[in-house]
Order: sequence, then structure tokens, then C-alpha cells
Amino acid sequence: MNKTEITTSNQLNDHYCVIMAGGVGSRFWPLSKNNFPKQFLDVLGTGKSFIRSTFERFLPIVPVENFLVVTNEAYKHLVLEHIPELSENQVLCEPMRRNTAPCIAYASYRIQAQCPNAVVAVTPADHLVTNEVEFQRVIGLGFDFVSHPDHQDALMTVGIRPSRPETGYGYIEVSPRSLQNAVGEVVPMDNFKEKPDLETAKQFLEAGRYFWNSGIFVWSIHAILSAFKSYLPDMAAIFDEGASVFATDGEQQFINENFARCENISIDYGVMERSQCRYTIPADFGWSDIGTYGSLYTHATHDANGNAKSGTALLVESKNCVVNIEEGTEAIVQGMDRCLVVYRNGSLLVCRMDDEQRIKQWVEQIGR
Amino acid sequence: MNKTEITTSNQLNDHYCVIMAGGVGSRFWPLSKNNFPKQFLDVLGTGKSFIRSTFERFLPIVPVENFLVVTNEAYKHLVLEHIPELSENQVLCEPMRRNTAPCIAYASYRIQAQCPNAVVAVTPADHLVTNEVEFQRVIGLGFDFVSHPDHQDALMTVGIRPSRPETGYGYIEVSPRSLQNAVGEVVPMDNFKEKPDLETAKQFLEAGRYFWNSGIFVWSIHAILSAFKSYLPDMAAIFDEGASVFATDGEQQFINENFARCENISIDYGVMERSQCRYTIPADFGWSDIGTYGSLYTHATHDANGNAKSGTALLVESKNCVVNIEEGTEAIVQGMDRCLVVYRNGSLLVCRMDDEQRIKQWVEQIGR
Repeated sequence: MNKTEITTSNQLNDHYCVIMAGGVGSRFWPLSKNNFPKQFLDVLGTGKSFIRSTFERFLPIVPVENFLVVTNEAYKHLVLEHIPELSENQVLCEPMRRNTAPCIAYASYRIQAQCPNAVVAVTPADHLVTNEVEFQRVIGLGFDFVSHPDHQDALMTVGIRPSRPETGYGYIEVSPRSLQNAVGEVVPMDNFKEKPDLETAKQFLEAGRYFWNSGIFVWSIHAILSAFKSYLPDMAAIFDEGASVFATDGEQQFINENFARCENISIDYGVMERSQCRYTIPADFGWSDIGTYGSLYTHATHDANGNAKSGTALLVESKNCVVNIEEGTEAIVQGMDRCLVVYRNGSLLVCRMDDEQRIKQWVEQIGR
Repeated sequence: MNKTEITTSNQLNDHYCVIMAGGVGSRFWPLSKNNFPKQFLDVLGTGKSFIRSTFERFLPIVPVENFLVVTNEAYKHLVLEHIPELSENQVLCEPMRRNTAPCIAYASYRIQAQCPNAVVAVTPADHLVTNEVEFQRVIGLGFDFVSHPDHQDALMTVGIRPSRPETGYGYIEVSPRSLQNAVGEVVPMDNFKEKPDLETAKQFLEAGRYFWNSGIFVWSIHAILSAFKSYLPDMAAIFDEGASVFATDGEQQFINENFARCENISIDYGVMERSQCRYTIPADFGWSDIGTYGSLYTHATHDANGNAKSGTALLVESKNCVVNIEEGTEAIVQGMDRCLVVYRNGSLLVCRMDDEQRIKQWVEQIGR
């Protein structure tokens, strides 16, 4: 593959970015809630929300008018507040949550109506990337790859080189042969692997050819719409019915009336696992999905006792805690070890960090 | 002593009650704060604040017009809100906190101006009494005793029969001889004992002649003013200067200008320890000063896991905790044992119950 040749054949104007921002993030309760989900938070104290950082991360490689944010109607104003560069019609509103496949189908049909030759990066709104330059290089490589006429059916997932035997992520498997000649390059992908147990995760880490599934994808509009037709034909048929309304005034009404008919299925299960033309780029750009307080803790600044503190709190004889207190409130936290103490907007969480996977379940119990 | 004779010689109209309500109660932070101290709280969920309960506890034995509440100017409106039966001139305002001796001196000079023959019960505003009938019997006994011409110099402290080897209270010692013929009756008092260590407290409990110092006093105006003149002559001199202004329009100005000159000293140290004419009634009416969350916990209702919960909180795998959450807020508390989790009005406390004696110090650290 001649990289220079590919780059010149590609138009920046064809580069699109779809930011998926419909989630609620209940594992971050009470920081995130139904009316203020995680993507709009700045839990790391960087001065920017996750969705703002995601937008800025793609801005050097995608023209501002080629961004689409897919979210819930309830969050539309928040999206426009956090990314005022967007015009209203760049915010696509799902009438209900239906997982990633319908979300991506909707955005893809919209893009097809505007730019049938587009190549698209799809990304969650609420991930952390620390090395943005390397990120842009990797995504740029993906754009180049899927733009090439030889790869017009390629579906690409960004794989993250694991730094620890993480059991909280799915993995992408690459064959030993494929990996030989391609570190930081596009390689064929063998399989998806479900979240492993610790022993398996350790084997994955050692083998060196398993990568975290980042949920970031790159493909051409041609490739993804063909894949929907092949692997989720019912869903494709729904959107095909409305093909003529996308990017017109009739689009929202069509979506409101038909979106609920779509199967609630992820793009991984619905498309990627069934595809025969999958690629990945094993990448290393300082990535985390910050899916839990634990990952927030990992990436936060710690005091001498290993506490990640945010807000006005006196910590006494406490270590390895996350203490996150709303501005304008104050706290005394004493005698805690590996605990979460989080107060936001009338809701308080005090729990063991080791049990944080169950926060979602407790939040359901209190009916929030 | 002939009890019937004494009672008939005594006029109910001479019975006064002084409620000392100037404290801040920082050991109950954040339930109590400078702008809303403990005496105005209903921490036990009885439906009545401590000060209201204190007032009602004395009401059957003291005419409503003979109550005085000594407090800070800042709390005057709270006092009148909690005890609307009082007229404004029954609320005495200290310009600053000066411990119990100046507080009692002020109230005593006021009462002298109104009723020189008064007998007075002095009580903190923030204690718990569970057996009010027995309480009224004991205080009535005290009134009778100090009303008798033979006891016109008697200073009486109510002693509480200890139920555990408590190290958090001072003790009152009674000689074995005195105690023989007087359970629930007035007996001469030997000594005050400082807060003991646990070993000493156990010995006190076993000996049966040591009683908790309740901080509740009964005496005649004649007796307490004589004692001030004898044992705190400088303080008495200050109030004597203004003797003519008490119970007149000039009183508040005199107090504002002269109160700061009074020594900051407790009635125990300043008067009771020096007096030669001290008595006590060993009493048992279900008393606690509810001085800490631990004592609140002792007196509260517990769930099956020993938690005392107040407010909307989901407790998961938590035991022996005090969880007290402001109305309108919600909490999830998981994996805690013998902890305090208290949220009120923008302030959060999470700490080990065993370390609660240090709450006051932490609150000072955060500058509240």
C-alpha cells in the first residue's frame, strides 16, 4: 500500500464524523443523571466536557460542517451549548434509545443524502484520549484506507493496545501473521472477544495480538450501508423507505414515526460480528472509556494519600478515595479507604470503589 | 424534712425556669451550624426540637411567664419561633458567648428584679429526657427543697444515675453515708469529678455513689446571687453596677456594653466547685445530653442491620451507621460499618463513628 498515493486521492471534504451522544451514564450517578449525562460532564477537571473534547479531537481532520451528533431530543440544547459551532440540523435526535446500530444507520442515511462518497469516523461522545496527535494520525490512516477503491467494503474498528489485563472491555483478535508487518497500521481483524475473565485477560495481554474494542469505527458510507443491507436487512428496509426524506424537512417526522421499529442491537453484534471485511488499527493514543469511577480515579490527579479530590473537601485519614463534591458545597471525609464519596445536585453516593459495577443497579433500585 | 409542709409553703408563681440556649453544637455538624444550632433541631425525629421539648418539660411546674431563654441575638427569632408562647422580653440576648456563669448571672439578676423570692431551675436547651413525669417530680422536689428557709443558700445539681461507664461526662460524688437514706431524694454533694478514664468510670459505676453531672441546677435567687458575690465577686460587681436597669428598657444596652467584661467561666468551675452548700438529687428519668452522633444513635430507632436512618437513603451492605439525609435529597450508602453519613444544606460529613469526638476539630479546620 502506497500511503502518499492514497492520501492525495482523498478529499478532506468527504470526511465525516458521527458523535454518538445518546447515553445516560448511570454508572456515574450522581455526577451523571438522566437530565445531565456523562458526555456533558468534565469529570477529569480538564475544563472541557467529554463531548467538547471529542469534537475538538476530530476538528483538525473533519470540516466543522461534516460533524453529526446523534443524541436524544432532551439533550439537543446541551449538545448545541457544548458545541456552539454546530448548526441545529447537525444534531440528530433519536426519539428513544435503541443502541448503536439504529443510531449509526440514521446518521449514515443522512450522510448518504448529503455526500454519497463520504468516509466516516463514528465515535462515542464520552471517551478520553490523551495523545490527540497520534489519535488524528490513526483516524487519518483509517480515512485513507477506507477511501481506497480496493477497500470500498472495509469496516474498520480502532483497537487499543492493552496496558493491563482489563476485564471490563471487549477485545479484538488479530492473527499472528497479520500483525507481523503492521504496528500502528491497518490490519485484517479476526474475531471479537467478549469481556474476558482475569486469567484470559492476562493471556490476551501476553499474546500481544488482542486489542481493546474502542467502539470507534471508520468506514465509507458505501461500506456501512451495504453492510446494513446484508446483515440487518430489516433495519435497512426501514431507513430505505424514508431514503428521500433524509436531509430534508421531513426527516425528523420520519424518524419519530419509524425509529421505534428498529431492532435494539449494537453495531458490534448486528454488523461487525457478521462482516467478512473487517480491519483494525492497533493503536496507542492514551485511550479510556472512563466508564466507571475506577477509570476516572486512574486518570485523575492524586494527593499524597492516593485520593482523587474534586470540590471543597477536608480529607482526614482517608486514602485511595474518589471524593467529588458539588461546587458551593463542602465535605468532611474521614477514615475512608478505597471509597467513592460523590455529591451532586441533591444526590449522594457513598460506596466501596470495588463494588462500583453495581452502582447502576442501586440507581435503578431508588428509581432514578 | 416534711415534704407536705414544704410544698404548701411554696408558691408556684415563684418558680422560674432559665433555658440556656446559646450553644452552637458543632459536634453535630452539619446538622447543626452557627446559623442553626442543635437546640433548634429535631435530630431524634420526635416532631419537636430540643428547645421545644425542654420548654414543654418544665411547663407543668413553671408558669409560662416565668420562663427565660438566654441565647445569642442571632437566635432570638428562632427561639420565638420554637416557643411562640414566650413574649420577646423573655428572651435574653447575650452579645457574645461567655460560658454558663455569665449567662446564669444575667438571668439571675433579671429574675431578682422581677421576683426576689424566686426559686429557679436552670437547664441546657438541648438535652433529652424520656420520663418527663419523673423529671417533673425531681425538679419539683428541688424547688421544694431550695424554697425551705433552712436551705436558703443551697445550690442543687441534678445528678443522673449512670447506666454505663461513660467517659464523656463529669461526675458528682456523694458520700456513702449521705446516700444511705436518699434514693430519689435531695442529698448533700461531696465533689465534682472530671471526665474519668474508662477504668475509673467502671469504678464509679460499681460504687453506686457517683452520678453524671447533668448541668441542670435548682436554687433560690438569694442563694445563687450570694454565691456569685462570694465566689465570682468581679462578675457580681459588674452586674451590681446595672442592678437598677434589669427588667427595664435599659437592660439590653447595659448588657451589650458590659457583658464582654465578664470572665469566660462555667458555673461548675466558677461557683459549684467553690460552694460549701451543695446538694444533688440522684435521679433516673431517662436523660442524655445527646452531645454526639453516638448518643443520637443510641436513642434512635434502628433497622435490622443496626442502622439509624433518616431521609431518603438506600442502604446496601451497611450496618450500625447513622445516615441522616436532608429532605428532598437522596443517597446510596453501601459497604459502610459504624459510619456517620450526614448531609445538610450543602455540607456533607462522612466519618467513622468511633472518631466523632474529633468532628468539632475538623469543622474548625474547614473554617466553619
